[in-house]
Amino acid sequence: MKLAIDAMGGDNAPEAIVKGAVKAAETIDGLSITLVGDESQIRPFLKEQPNITVLHTTEMITSEDEPVRAVRRKKKASMVMAATEVKEGRADGCISAGNTGALMSAGLFIVGRMPGVERPALSPTLPTMDGKGFLMLDVGANVDAKPAHLLQYAVIGSIYSENVRKINNPRVGLLNVGTEDGKGSDLTKQAFQLMKEAPINFVGNVESRDLLNGVADVVVTDGFTGNVALKTIEGTALTMFSMMKETFMSSWKTKIAAGLVKDDLRGLKNQLDYSEYGGAGLFGLASPVIKAHGSSNERAVLNAIRQACEMVELNVTETISSTLDRMKEKEESE
Amino acid sequence: MKLAIDAMGGDNAPEAIVKGAVKAAETIDGLSITLVGDESQIRPFLKEQPNITVLHTTEMITSEDEPVRAVRRKKKASMVMAATEVKEGRADGCISAGNTGALMSAGLFIVGRMPGVERPALSPTLPTMDGKGFLMLDVGANVDAKPAHLLQYAVIGSIYSENVRKINNPRVGLLNVGTEDGKGSDLTKQAFQLMKEAPINFVGNVESRDLLNGVADVVVTDGFTGNVALKTIEGTALTMFSMMKETFMSSWKTKIAAGLVKDDLRGLKNQLDYSEYGGAGLFGLASPVIKAHGSSNERAVLNAIRQACEMVELNVTETISSTLDRMKEKEESE
Repeated sequence: MKLAIDAMGGDNAPEAIVKGAVKAAETIDGLSITLVGDESQIRPFLKEQPNITVLHTTEMITSEDEPVRAVRRKKKASMVMAATEVKEGRADGCISAGNTGALMSAGLFIVGRMPGVERPALSPTLPTMDGKGFLMLDVGANVDAKPAHLLQYAVIGSIYSENVRKINNPRVGLLNVGTEDGKGSDLTKQAFQLMKEAPINFVGNVESRDLLNGVADVVVTDGFTGNVALKTIEGTALTMFSMMKETFMSSWKTKIAAGLVKDDLRGLKNQLDYSEYGGAGLFGLASPVIKAHGSSNERAVLNAIRQACEMVELNVTETISSTLDRMKEKEESE
Repeated sequence: MKLAIDAMGGDNAPEAIVKGAVKAAETIDGLSITLVGDESQIRPFLKEQPNITVLHTTEMITSEDEPVRAVRRKKKASMVMAATEVKEGRADGCISAGNTGALMSAGLFIVGRMPGVERPALSPTLPTMDGKGFLMLDVGANVDAKPAHLLQYAVIGSIYSENVRKINNPRVGLLNVGTEDGKGSDLTKQAFQLMKEAPINFVGNVESRDLLNGVADVVVTDGFTGNVALKTIEGTALTMFSMMKETFMSSWKTKIAAGLVKDDLRGLKNQLDYSEYGGAGLFGLASPVIKAHGSSNERAVLNAIRQACEMVELNVTETISSTLDRMKEKEESE
């Protein structure tokens, strides 16, 4: 099993990326890694590791680059070369913590879609209060989704959760403005009907106020709504942490309290830290492509690598592909 | 100035509604109120108040009622009768803390739209860290919005914020998946072009992670996305408060800390309490219709009444209507 990793993407690159890769190479059996990026910056963090090779390049895509254009023009960028390793069969999957839009473009244009999938979906696993987390897709790969796309997300998300997240018969919900059947926009009403007939454990409509309570294991939505929901969770949590900090700094009494609960509150922050769950999969591509969070540390990179390895080992891509094929055959025979 | 108030809607009805109305009648000059509901339940909370009358009815719409059907069939429901007072000219506006969907239907079918407005928008004012708050519209009146609807929301929200919220030249943002021009879905891309030409202070695209930081005074979005964003804010905040509570109860050390910061943390919760900002206006109707939060206490009801009074006194409906007329004339002459 071989993964190509963009060593230059993310806030803590290349250090956190390289260190995470070293840890993965040490602990995951049968894994070899190609680190793509500036060798002079990578080497300092690299031990003597027989199963890690470096593919040198100095070009890279930044967070300011316009995604589609950058992928088309910067052929020698570390992210583009990592995707090319997959396309040309020298790697089974790739990972980057860099520009999300660019990785989606690289996935689409270089790695390519899985046959039968119309639109790939960006699919992070988000935290829940009980620590189990839920998969949300799509959070922004496809902002003008059609009902048939949502149906595919439901099937893809269910298969991934069952295989990689080891959730038995995962509960799939449709993000909507009410929980009753028949609620919602034209898009969700039509998607609801399709999802009812799909080979998944469809639990119906779910509301965004229940997401962090773990109302479903897989939450299906269009990329526009999913992106807004994801960023609203992030923004609200950050705002509350910063308001809490202000509150704790407001008097000597609260400062004493802060000293007493500091460690416990850090635990709370970790509970909401979704790098624990690995990166966001770009599902529906011909091979696993994982977007690690931009602020990924060594541990988050390791988790993203583990996730990619599981997807490769458990043939998740093939299972998704054959399930979609069977659905299509069934539909045509009806 | 006369308001009709549904005394039976909301978790704390009729007590909180009646008490809020009494307070309003005592403090707002020239206001008279018609309380609609079960007189035997209303009277106990009513002082001798010359400018409050009771319109008796025992029928009411519950939170379980299907909105459109309930409004059509329960002609004697307190909410329906309050809206009818407006329609028949006996009140200048109405308020309910009951079933949101039913109030939107009552607004649309009984009070009726303002000429020239295609779709009314449900428009709450949400809290920001600096305590100023922002108006978000639409949060669910119209889940399949078109670009022209978003343009009208922008104009309506701007006029309301300038007049009632006293914000000079309010910044109007379009909720989107990125801040750059040209980002987003077909809907937001088209709305962006229309908003650029509108007589408002358009600040471009805003992202949901910046909402609580006060990135704009008016945030425009379609009813589906707005509803999801609103419920995500609520759900994330509630989850964090309940995780914080758990953290504070986890050991003797944290319990001591909890004792020290209890009052301050309650302040934090109040800061996020949007009943302080009044209710959600159903903007675009022929007269002011205000949805007070379901859990409204006396103070929240009073704030919603103040808000309705300001809308009436400052002729907000007329200003919106004439501005939309001028825009239409300009468009036709071009």
